[in-house]
Amino acid sequence: MKEILILGAGRSSGFLIEYLATKSIANNWRITIADQNTSILNIDTFKSCPIQLLDIDIFQNLLQIESMIASSTIVISMLPAFLHPPIAELCLKHKIHFATASYVGNELKTLQSEIENNGLFFLNECGLDPGLDHMSAMRIIDSCRNENASILSFKSWCGGLISTESIGDNPWGYKFSWNPRNVILAGQSPACYMFKDEHKYIPYSRLFKEHEHINFQNKYELEGYANRDSLSYKSIYNLNDISTLLRGTLRYKNYCGAWHVFVSLGITDDSYTYNLVPGKTTYANFVSSFLPGTGDVKKRLMDFPAVCGDKHIFEMIAWTGLLSNNIIPNKPSSPAQILQTLLEEKWKLMPSDNDLVLMMHEFEILTQRGERKRIQSFLESEGAGPNQTAMSKTVGLPLAYTIELFLNGRLQQKGIVLPITSEIYKPVLDALEKEQNIRFVEEETLL
Amino acid sequence: MKEILILGAGRSSGFLIEYLATKSIANNWRITIADQNTSILNIDTFKSCPIQLLDIDIFQNLLQIESMIASSTIVISMLPAFLHPPIAELCLKHKIHFATASYVGNELKTLQSEIENNGLFFLNECGLDPGLDHMSAMRIIDSCRNENASILSFKSWCGGLISTESIGDNPWGYKFSWNPRNVILAGQSPACYMFKDEHKYIPYSRLFKEHEHINFQNKYELEGYANRDSLSYKSIYNLNDISTLLRGTLRYKNYCGAWHVFVSLGITDDSYTYNLVPGKTTYANFVSSFLPGTGDVKKRLMDFPAVCGDKHIFEMIAWTGLLSNNIIPNKPSSPAQILQTLLEEKWKLMPSDNDLVLMMHEFEILTQRGERKRIQSFLESEGAGPNQTAMSKTVGLPLAYTIELFLNGRLQQKGIVLPITSEIYKPVLDALEKEQNIRFVEEETLL
Repeated sequence: MKEILILGAGRSSGFLIEYLATKSIANNWRITIADQNTSILNIDTFKSCPIQLLDIDIFQNLLQIESMIASSTIVISMLPAFLHPPIAELCLKHKIHFATASYVGNELKTLQSEIENNGLFFLNECGLDPGLDHMSAMRIIDSCRNENASILSFKSWCGGLISTESIGDNPWGYKFSWNPRNVILAGQSPACYMFKDEHKYIPYSRLFKEHEHINFQNKYELEGYANRDSLSYKSIYNLNDISTLLRGTLRYKNYCGAWHVFVSLGITDDSYTYNLVPGKTTYANFVSSFLPGTGDVKKRLMDFPAVCGDKHIFEMIAWTGLLSNNIIPNKPSSPAQILQTLLEEKWKLMPSDNDLVLMMHEFEILTQRGERKRIQSFLESEGAGPNQTAMSKTVGLPLAYTIELFLNGRLQQKGIVLPITSEIYKPVLDALEKEQNIRFVEEETLL
Repeated sequence: MKEILILGAGRSSGFLIEYLATKSIANNWRITIADQNTSILNIDTFKSCPIQLLDIDIFQNLLQIESMIASSTIVISMLPAFLHPPIAELCLKHKIHFATASYVGNELKTLQSEIENNGLFFLNECGLDPGLDHMSAMRIIDSCRNENASILSFKSWCGGLISTESIGDNPWGYKFSWNPRNVILAGQSPACYMFKDEHKYIPYSRLFKEHEHINFQNKYELEGYANRDSLSYKSIYNLNDISTLLRGTLRYKNYCGAWHVFVSLGITDDSYTYNLVPGKTTYANFVSSFLPGTGDVKKRLMDFPAVCGDKHIFEMIAWTGLLSNNIIPNKPSSPAQILQTLLEEKWKLMPSDNDLVLMMHEFEILTQRGERKRIQSFLESEGAGPNQTAMSKTVGLPLAYTIELFLNGRLQQKGIVLPITSEIYKPVLDALEKEQNIRFVEEETLL
């Protein structure tokens, strides 16, 4: 019997847990799920499965967790990213396999040879982005290599949006299907990418202004902004001769221009506590304190360079309630936290809302016969309400399917493993398409 | 005999050491100066004084330093700011008085009651800015209070510049008379001040753009940008009812607009290592990688929004060498470090250069008789070459004079002491004016 220990039962774990549960009896797996609060799990769906739930504060009880880790076959960490390194170290100490959807951190990289020497399988970056992006990109890259085509340019975009039916009167076309704090602070580490053989850097103050317009299969009018360090993907994908390499985040049209106003005002800053007058400071006062001059806040916002008289952008800001005379809740908060609290109300997924995950790769290649071709790959996945989001599905299922492959002895790799080899991406992408309707549509155009 | 231990003999210590040395025999003081390299001191000026020089790496030899501290009367720290807290703690441990020109840090604040209970004198913020600004501002504030006048507005500006004769063909009108790194990174913590009863915040991306024009006695055309947290001065100066409170940094005209280009490009970022191609990347490549698009870097810079076709601003950037095809030295550097290395060449004080310290306070007050008045206070101090800068004079002498007062038993205060009481500012400002020609000129205007 194999023992699977899942740490973290938050919203992003639902599909992963459900999938592994349904496979547990046939595979002779026993599953233990530990979280501060496991009651949010829908137990009915797997009450006949060999599953044990444990309510425990993992951070406060690392000793108890350690003994559970020591008796597991594999540990899956669905915890916040800062908890991965201590969990991974405990796994290494007890020679237990480890899996997470998150980025490989620097702490983990230093353990690479030790993990390998112990014959351990440490799976990382195996969710949506990073995860499905790796798989679908490498499927195309490997196929180009097999045909001796050169890859000249690769742009990859991904976004957690909402379905067009769920937009209603929300001028941002956005609601939170993922960690709100990450959305508020997005872009604060400088973006770096390659464009026509040149390294390019964009500071935070210009990131949302210098967005690209993206047409997604003539179906969605989108905007994309560059996402952190695209250069690192050169070595991950072995694209050493590539001329343009960019990874970015997708939003609906107008989002970036309006978010640029927040950045330019300074209200996404998380580095200091904003001076509130308790019970007195309103959201309009808050915005006013970031605008030059005095007097009517609406007029000054309209004249603010990042708005520059654009009525639609102005209405997007007003819609959030930032120009209202409502009092800001009295607790010590950074500007970013004040903005987050407000947007968590306005951008909350309602029971009738479906989220929408979009991913798009765009390659330009030169074939062996000297033809220039564009290859595009599109993923579109719509959720079913706030508890069964496309986000949690596309994060959890790639991880679950890959872990299933590993536990069934079908993967040979050891060490720190990313889903970039055909051994993983082929069976996983095939199964996701057949069984889960998570499919990439590829299109080729001669240029 | 009183023992004075001076830690740090860098360029900013010269005037302090010389003044204390000249007073040492009459006062029966013995002075020990410890630094990694004391040879830069001009020993001739005090060879007949009871002074001992010690070449020692203070950071590496804290134990030896501790025994020296324990046998001192007062320790003066002229070290980099991060070394003040450990030195201050050793002073507290051995019940030794302590003095520095630097800001009171949070570590020191937590020791406030312990310092007081031990009857110790811990002098801080007693250089130029902070230091002379406290003294000259509090002299005016106390005088207003004595006449029952209300202070409505207080703006205070200070800058370490160069004399107009030293500007030559330098379109920035600026050279380093102080720590270059602090100049490169200036403004990266958000500025916060009060304007007409409202708290105001300016993020880094707008700080240099939203500068004020400052006329200094019809003699200098200057620009000023807001300097960090002005709000904290409300409590230090007990200005609880004030409506406008702003502290800022002075530069010659056009500096702020051109520096805004650097900020907007992103080349003052110190948070990551820039990707250099060793022996190949030029300064023009460096700038190009921060500009949108491809092609002629000069044209793109001219069209860049922060330049917006302004030829003078463009020429200021070009003058630094940032558009040249010179190769960037091959060592791992952040963008800010690359910029600093370049500017350290261009902005170096030459033997014929004199620096210039300017300080300006501007109060608006309401007198008891209901008159509105403007009170201005101006300090202008010119240095004598790169080794006797006005900067080191105006930093070192206020500290030296205040320590002399203390050692001669003329100060009653204990605990963490700032030079904001008449007990200190009166004798120090009087002596600086009479003996050193460091004088504040005050002007009053009826509004």
